[in-house]
Amino acid sequence: MSTDTANRIHIEKATTSKISQVDFNNLMFGRVFTDHMFVCDFKDGKWQKPQIMPYQAMTIEPSARVFHYGQAVFEGMKAYKDEDGKTFLFRPQQNFERINKSSARMAIPEFPQNYFFEGLEALLKLDNEWIKPGVGSSLYLRPFVIATEPAISASPANEYRFMIICSPAKAYYNEPVRVLIAEKYSRSADGGVGFAKAAGNYGAQFFPTSLAQKKGFQQIIWTDASTHDYLEEAGTMNIFFRINDKLITAPTNDRILDGVTRKSVIQLAEDLGIDCEVRQITVKEIKEAAKDGSLKEIFGAGTAAVISPVSAFEHAGDVFEITAADKSYAQLFKSTLLNIQHNLSEDKHGWRHEIK
Amino acid sequence: MSTDTANRIHIEKATTSKISQVDFNNLMFGRVFTDHMFVCDFKDGKWQKPQIMPYQAMTIEPSARVFHYGQAVFEGMKAYKDEDGKTFLFRPQQNFERINKSSARMAIPEFPQNYFFEGLEALLKLDNEWIKPGVGSSLYLRPFVIATEPAISASPANEYRFMIICSPAKAYYNEPVRVLIAEKYSRSADGGVGFAKAAGNYGAQFFPTSLAQKKGFQQIIWTDASTHDYLEEAGTMNIFFRINDKLITAPTNDRILDGVTRKSVIQLAEDLGIDCEVRQITVKEIKEAAKDGSLKEIFGAGTAAVISPVSAFEHAGDVFEITAADKSYAQLFKSTLLNIQHNLSEDKHGWRHEIK
Repeated sequence: MSTDTANRIHIEKATTSKISQVDFNNLMFGRVFTDHMFVCDFKDGKWQKPQIMPYQAMTIEPSARVFHYGQAVFEGMKAYKDEDGKTFLFRPQQNFERINKSSARMAIPEFPQNYFFEGLEALLKLDNEWIKPGVGSSLYLRPFVIATEPAISASPANEYRFMIICSPAKAYYNEPVRVLIAEKYSRSADGGVGFAKAAGNYGAQFFPTSLAQKKGFQQIIWTDASTHDYLEEAGTMNIFFRINDKLITAPTNDRILDGVTRKSVIQLAEDLGIDCEVRQITVKEIKEAAKDGSLKEIFGAGTAAVISPVSAFEHAGDVFEITAADKSYAQLFKSTLLNIQHNLSEDKHGWRHEIK
Repeated sequence: MSTDTANRIHIEKATTSKISQVDFNNLMFGRVFTDHMFVCDFKDGKWQKPQIMPYQAMTIEPSARVFHYGQAVFEGMKAYKDEDGKTFLFRPQQNFERINKSSARMAIPEFPQNYFFEGLEALLKLDNEWIKPGVGSSLYLRPFVIATEPAISASPANEYRFMIICSPAKAYYNEPVRVLIAEKYSRSADGGVGFAKAAGNYGAQFFPTSLAQKKGFQQIIWTDASTHDYLEEAGTMNIFFRINDKLITAPTNDRILDGVTRKSVIQLAEDLGIDCEVRQITVKEIKEAAKDGSLKEIFGAGTAAVISPVSAFEHAGDVFEITAADKSYAQLFKSTLLNIQHNLSEDKHGWRHEIK
């Protein structure tokens, strides 16, 4: 870290590390956190001096606006380590730009680019031992912003806290998921906040998803709220359909998250010579394709799961099983992405960001 | 308080009161809190023993799910004092039922009725000096539930905290508000969480409202997300239109909050012999009524503002000023409600709930 950065961030190191207590072979997602966290408060109209401190609980007023009005946004990113011990982020500029887009929609002040990157870099150096090499292993990074001002008037807060916490993640099992296509519940409205990683978008999905799970489906593919005719996204993943050899995914709009993995898959499809159409796709179209056998694959794309194959979907009481394609696009995109992320293949688009 | 209740709630009294530091003539909404707060944690599958303790900041993990996924709901209620020093709540059963409806939609476990009422009653006795008599003065009560489990997986939490905090409120000035009718932004989708007092519904309105405020409008009247043709609610208030002598308000649905003040106004209209239609109402209809002079009043109805008259609205660049009606319904409902709430008139529907 340059002296300049060291001056900009106040660093208090943990006196001992918790790392020896962690079983890296049995990690549940998002439950174990590293030794340090990044904290930067907004008050008096500006972001104050950033701090890195030992990971710890914080003190917050019960009247903090985040508790009452959900004024909060987040990002999901991963750090990877190659066999030589070099550490990389994947397209972090995308996450930086998106958290500020989310913040703007939620009336949260934008966060400075230098603080974001210097915070990540300083954290990843301090907690570098927590990033395990090996394809599939990673350190999940959770930048988030919450409204902390202690006043329950229903208006944008004057005080915020930006934080980054880090949680080691193991390889996701590649078990295919069964999904239900939404017919009644909705994730977001035109003119709403669906495109943003706003906290409330996620909590709002828990109940419909729990109903789906009771029926044996792990996730929901959301449809447009007006007609439920158009397939949109899966809430924590964007969604791709393969009909014969063509890939189709919905265009982003103000209801659909502009996923980093989604746009990487679209670019990789072009690189690999796979025809990928970004267009509206209807429930009717995929049901017909499932019936006539032209629907070869469905998969989700997102930072946490990377690529998540779908083995079945349900709609209006009809269940369609999808037999794994011979030369699976899902597998191809997953291995291509992981190889780039772990510095095992060429990075022609400059997506890797090395932490030096 | 009965011994039974005392046993059920663990009470730790504040050693000193902050009340002498409070200027009750200059209260800003939701910034000052009373000496005590109610706290009840959900863990190991059940609500634990409730506590009342001195109002204070709390310690919470940065990974608590409320910060990341907005899994949080709230209520707004008021306690009133009459000239004899008796304390009343207004239709608290409605708030109790609604917070559990909100919780169900947000996959939060429902809160027990006895804890809710015993908590309110114990708090209102301990902090009774904070409730000032006089029409318009009240103690605003904010029950809320937040997901506290320290794990950032995107699924319903296993740990929650239910709290009630209390803030003295002065009479709202009866200054009419100027409102903008939504044409682009939306508050909620069919099949979404708009009917619930879910935290994220409120933060999502802050940015569009701030744009409206820059144009000189204090609030937005939200329209349906699909067509923007139908008038719905104002985000913190339900909305009523008076055309000639008829009152019209939108029916509640899964996008619109089932407001306690709204349903009280509908009942009072019946009592007062005012024709009140609960039906869909279009932007076109009120613009035409404004043009031909039949639109006499618009007002909002909600716990915080009671009744809030609207003096002007804007839609598609057209601004309509509404001259105050001679015998204003807004004033009539406001005084009728306040008189019931402050025990100054008959309570034929049993809306007052005395704290004994």
